Amino acid sequence: MKVVIVGAGAIGLLIGSYLGQQKHAITYVTRTKEQAQELVKRGVTCILPDDKVMNVHVDAFAGFSEAPKDALWIVAVKAHHLQELEKDFLSLPETTPLLFIQNGLSHLEWLERSIQNEIYIATIEHGAMKKDATTVLHTGVGLTKVAPTKSNMATLDMTMFRSPFFEIEVMDDALGTVLRKAVLNACINPITAVLQIKNGELDTNEQAYLLMKSVFHEIESAFPEIRKSLSFEDVLALCKKTSSNDSSMLQDLQNHRKTEIEPIVGALIDLAAARNKELPKLTMLYHLVLALEIKGDLSE
Amino acid sequence: MKVVIVGAGAIGLLIGSYLGQQKHAITYVTRTKEQAQELVKRGVTCILPDDKVMNVHVDAFAGFSEAPKDALWIVAVKAHHLQELEKDFLSLPETTPLLFIQNGLSHLEWLERSIQNEIYIATIEHGAMKKDATTVLHTGVGLTKVAPTKSNMATLDMTMFRSPFFEIEVMDDALGTVLRKAVLNACINPITAVLQIKNGELDTNEQAYLLMKSVFHEIESAFPEIRKSLSFEDVLALCKKTSSNDSSMLQDLQNHRKTEIEPIVGALIDLAAARNKELPKLTMLYHLVLALEIKGDLSE
Repeated sequence: MKVVIVGAGAIGLLIGSYLGQQKHAITYVTRTKEQAQELVKRGVTCILPDDKVMNVHVDAFAGFSEAPKDALWIVAVKAHHLQELEKDFLSLPETTPLLFIQNGLSHLEWLERSIQNEIYIATIEHGAMKKDATTVLHTGVGLTKVAPTKSNMATLDMTMFRSPFFEIEVMDDALGTVLRKAVLNACINPITAVLQIKNGELDTNEQAYLLMKSVFHEIESAFPEIRKSLSFEDVLALCKKTSSNDSSMLQDLQNHRKTEIEPIVGALIDLAAARNKELPKLTMLYHLVLALEIKGDLSE
Repeated sequence: MKVVIVGAGAIGLLIGSYLGQQKHAITYVTRTKEQAQELVKRGVTCILPDDKVMNVHVDAFAGFSEAPKDALWIVAVKAHHLQELEKDFLSLPETTPLLFIQNGLSHLEWLERSIQNEIYIATIEHGAMKKDATTVLHTGVGLTKVAPTKSNMATLDMTMFRSPFFEIEVMDDALGTVLRKAVLNACINPITAVLQIKNGELDTNEQAYLLMKSVFHEIESAFPEIRKSLSFEDVLALCKKTSSNDSSMLQDLQNHRKTEIEPIVGALIDLAAARNKELPKLTMLYHLVLALEIKGDLSE
């Protein structure tokens, strides 16, 4: 089928290469004309986890207007870039299905205001690193979970996008799915960013471990519904599985980029506050990361 | 008069040079024989704030036994080294006056167990940096506050040690004096250490400023008695005055040394707990600094 991918960062490129490989027709919507031209010229290249190289032909435009509307639109920009695209989304027909892949929770409120009937959200657990404008390294195989926000409106069977390195699980609880991922990120990312440690040190550094554990239990007591899908052992298992990785938040700080502290941690704190629950430990980490952003003199 | 100084770190050397300059007879008790020999050979050298150089002759031994007992003993080792010296202090006569100069609060409990009748505690606000075994840079002029722990036992007039760059104020409230200094350090040191920022950035980095302010008010609500001697404006003024300094806790972490997080912050948290008060923000910072100590693979 036709698939439009908005955003050609690491995740956008990863998805495009796997879906293009399966003969879906991929069109990118990029921020710059230069990247669109590069993508048309070179296609998308993915270095697979087994070091094989996959290259697929794609189309690309630096704007919404020229991309096909009778397609699934996958939105793979960072949460803090969604706002700039609000008018563009209003220009799409109500019948265009949208799939949102953002970290955190801040996009939930945003997509409630969308005029489209058919909206999905996904969480991605792959490791991916953008190498250049058209190349992505697939550094870790994970699961992609997709859920429709209104199941009675869902017409697409997301399992059609499955492939061996790109497993897809269809969920029914959209909020639960993104909340689980946000809690995982909230436990791991801010502590690794503040202490400048690799994910694995959350297991091996006893004090970091205790901090993470106490943050998890603080969040769990505000969101007891996550117990059915996430335990502290799951959080720890992810730290071990990604032990030699720098978390995305740490990478962002090291590269003087704005982090996802607001959509992940800020949004979680707000959601807890709406339930009259405080998250004092996570709030400390939130302010420390913001202070590090100011110190880092961010580029975007 | 005769003065024995236990510990020849930055503060020990600073005090010895100023007191030696005033013709008090200085004897050092050092940890190593090498440093004692160096001190006897070269004396203590202090580079004054006006860049003049002051050198004074001193005596020195690597142990308590040879130092004069009919002297004021100034204890200038770090709080976490006090424990190793417990037997040595028990070997001193009850009549030997002791003056303790440690950061934090953990030494208070320790000196309650001392057998000596006449005990003073002091807080020092000078900036000092040890250059080598016998040389100290006096980088910032501050006030030294001295208070007897039992005023009815006090026989020494500490103002006899005054000199232009070494001002001394005699206080009557010993606990209040060290508590004030500990709160100042607790507001400034952990945040600068965790964020790796200079003291001045606690004023200029808005998020760091808000963190420090919230930590101050958290401590203030557990120790309302500090209001009479310390306001948030005083804390901020010290950040500005020392704006280009790295706090001692940041320096310790950068040099892979054990920090004073336990005697300053750990002791404050314990003292608050004894009053059934929690300091959750400060406790987060405490654990973050401990995690950074583990990460840093400390040398001592």
